Amino acid sequence: MKIGMNHGAGGEVMGDLISQTVLNNVTKKIVNGGIGLDSLDDSATIPVGDKEIVITTDGHTINPLFFPGGDIGRISAAGTINDISVMGAKPLAITNAMIIQEGFNIDDLDRIMKSMDETCRECDVGIIAGDTKVMEQGKIDKMVIVTTGIGIVDKGKAIRDSTLNVGDKIIISGSVGDHGMSLMSFREGFGFDTDLVSDVAPVYEIVEAALSVGGVTAMKDPTRGGLANSINEMAKKSNVGVLLEDDAIPVKKQVHAVSEMLGIDPYEVANEGKVLMGVKNKNASEVLKAIKNTKYGKEAAIIGEVTEGNRVLMETPIGGTRILEAPVADPVPRVC
Amino acid sequence: MKIGMNHGAGGEVMGDLISQTVLNNVTKKIVNGGIGLDSLDDSATIPVGDKEIVITTDGHTINPLFFPGGDIGRISAAGTINDISVMGAKPLAITNAMIIQEGFNIDDLDRIMKSMDETCRECDVGIIAGDTKVMEQGKIDKMVIVTTGIGIVDKGKAIRDSTLNVGDKIIISGSVGDHGMSLMSFREGFGFDTDLVSDVAPVYEIVEAALSVGGVTAMKDPTRGGLANSINEMAKKSNVGVLLEDDAIPVKKQVHAVSEMLGIDPYEVANEGKVLMGVKNKNASEVLKAIKNTKYGKEAAIIGEVTEGNRVLMETPIGGTRILEAPVADPVPRVC
Ligand SMILES: Nc1ncnc2c1ncn2[C@@H]1O[C@H](COP(=O)(O)OP(=O)(O)OP(=O)(O)O)[C@@H](O)[C@H]1O
Ligand SMILES: Nc1ncnc2c1ncn2[C@@H]1O[C@H](COP(=O)(O)OP(=O)(O)OP(=O)(O)O)[C@@H](O)[C@H]1O
Ligand SMILES: [Mg+2]
Ligand SMILES: [Mg+2]
Ligand SMILES: [Mg+2]
Ligand SMILES: [Mg+2]
Ligand SMILES: [Mg+2]
Ligand SMILES: [Mg+2]
Repeated sequence: MKIGMNHGAGGEVMGDLISQTVLNNVTKKIVNGGIGLDSLDDSATIPVGDKEIVITTDGHTINPLFFPGGDIGRISAAGTINDISVMGAKPLAITNAMIIQEGFNIDDLDRIMKSMDETCRECDVGIIAGDTKVMEQGKIDKMVIVTTGIGIVDKGKAIRDSTLNVGDKIIISGSVGDHGMSLMSFREGFGFDTDLVSDVAPVYEIVEAALSVGGVTAMKDPTRGGLANSINEMAKKSNVGVLLEDDAIPVKKQVHAVSEMLGIDPYEVANEGKVLMGVKNKNASEVLKAIKNTKYGKEAAIIGEVTEGNRVLMETPIGGTRILEAPVADPVPRVC
Repeated sequence: MKIGMNHGAGGEVMGDLISQTVLNNVTKKIVNGGIGLDSLDDSATIPVGDKEIVITTDGHTINPLFFPGGDIGRISAAGTINDISVMGAKPLAITNAMIIQEGFNIDDLDRIMKSMDETCRECDVGIIAGDTKVMEQGKIDKMVIVTTGIGIVDKGKAIRDSTLNVGDKIIISGSVGDHGMSLMSFREGFGFDTDLVSDVAPVYEIVEAALSVGGVTAMKDPTRGGLANSINEMAKKSNVGVLLEDDAIPVKKQVHAVSEMLGIDPYEVANEGKVLMGVKNKNASEVLKAIKNTKYGKEAAIIGEVTEGNRVLMETPIGGTRILEAPVADPVPRVC
């Protein structure tokens, strides 16, 4: 068997590879009783004293390096900060491993480092270690950045992606599909002119706002595979069903337009500055209000609720109900 | 200015790039008063309660993926475990970010994961998180793995690479040049037949043995740029001189042979299972004995001592003295 593009594209094909080739081969998946690899959550944790260290890592192979609304530096910082944040943890620092193609422009490297730093500064996150490797011309496409995030949370207080309860409301912190669709339309040649830009941003302020109200039961950042992937994963891990309301899900007009033009479902493409969460019914409207008060949460919405069962269903505008499946893979390659 | 191979090859060229393009652009280099990016040590730390979390990251672009004595899975685990270990910290876990070429053989991926796991098991280290990305054919050479290590040490007890004191003995935990020379000779076509193999191994047991005796003042793993790079970095950061004895430095007969054939200095190539340390004079012979009792430390030796001044000098077998310079770059490309 050979690796295909779908093996690195979120969704079910990647999930199978991770189960079979990674999980099956790892002996020690949990350290000190923390959240381990077997949870396949956004981050892992290691309890230390009365705290838990929260750790996550993501490789960034995005193409192109500079895209509308961001660049590989910003996405590398934000992606990792976000996987820490959706554990309900405070991001403290990232590490920065760069694999660079021989002949790469050092001025571009400089721009990328400035952008990474600027993104970190938004949440007072340090860049405390890194590594630099160079591969020959033709051996790597421009640059790959792998960032690892370290955060901290009080012991036992990390928020999982597997703990939705029947009756919870589902909140999304803003419009869906911006990152994947803007990247795709840019690649298709619609250029930097369109006002459709990536949503890439650190979500820590959103999480903080929600947690300060209380009642948040589960969180995830809907990256590769988009909303469809994340909500299915949360429902499956939580052993519940979810009923979403299509009309309630915020999707930008331009995202709809590009989506129709390219035949790509906006619910299946990556978001890079959004949080998907379950919130207790009684706290939902207040959590929503708190999120709407943050810089990146202005378009947050309650989009559905947790039900009995084991399906993610979608109420369509014409009054029907359809199943929202987990995608086989994110339809946009090299999206992050 | 363009990136050249030397920008990713340890040594002075890489050091300049990191200072100019990385350090200059990072606002927050230190978190909670720990060891920060500005120290450019093997790992950074973040104090938490009465402990310090120790964090390090390394990208692995080694070519070929399977080489005499190891593979990319083993080097990815060991390299990161070693940067944690030489801080005097206990390695707890690693994360595993894989960037894989489309068309890569899944059986090879399986072998690599097994090897990574086996290496972690040697020191009871967990693999707790990771990431999987795929790049198109021709966009990446087979596979890159970035591992990040997380360890722990009592607060204030981390051992730096900048704290050599005049009078300390210098100990190397075994023979020098095995990794770089074996890789180079394999690439030159001497094949798997030669009995020269990489030293790639986790060094935690060696560090533990040394620390249990006491008197260790500074440590580093002499990877890219080899012994010459590491000892110069330690001396410079510590504001001291070092006098090494050429005859005392363990170098395998085959390493000497390949070194002469290829015109490469064995002191300038990477080691992947060695520790270079300063030890108080009064503890040196006991530390040496303890190291020699470990699996990977049997050929450890005292190779010199710390002096006044700011030069690394080498006593040659014929009684002269030469300067051992830091290399501009490791002479073996894609060595780790
Ligand atoms: N190569 C790998 N080795 C070990 N664990 C892996 C590997 N790839 C993925 N994982 C684990 O699988 C789970 C899912 O990974 P995934 O990358 O989809 O999560 P994510 O980072 O939240 O999403 P995205 O990468 O789209 O931002 C995580 O728990 C991750 O730690
Ligand atoms: N791209 C980068 N961003 C941030 N810090 C970096 C980067 N590259 C290197 N560093 C930092 O520079 C210092 C030297 O890095 P280097 O990779 O040489 O150390 P090492 O991992 O001990 O050696 P090796 O990589 O040969 O095993 C480390 O403190 C590392 O954190
Ligand atoms: Mg995530
Ligand atoms: Mg992620
Ligand atoms: Mg390194
Ligand atoms: Mg090191
Ligand atoms: Mg290293
Ligand atoms: Mg990931």
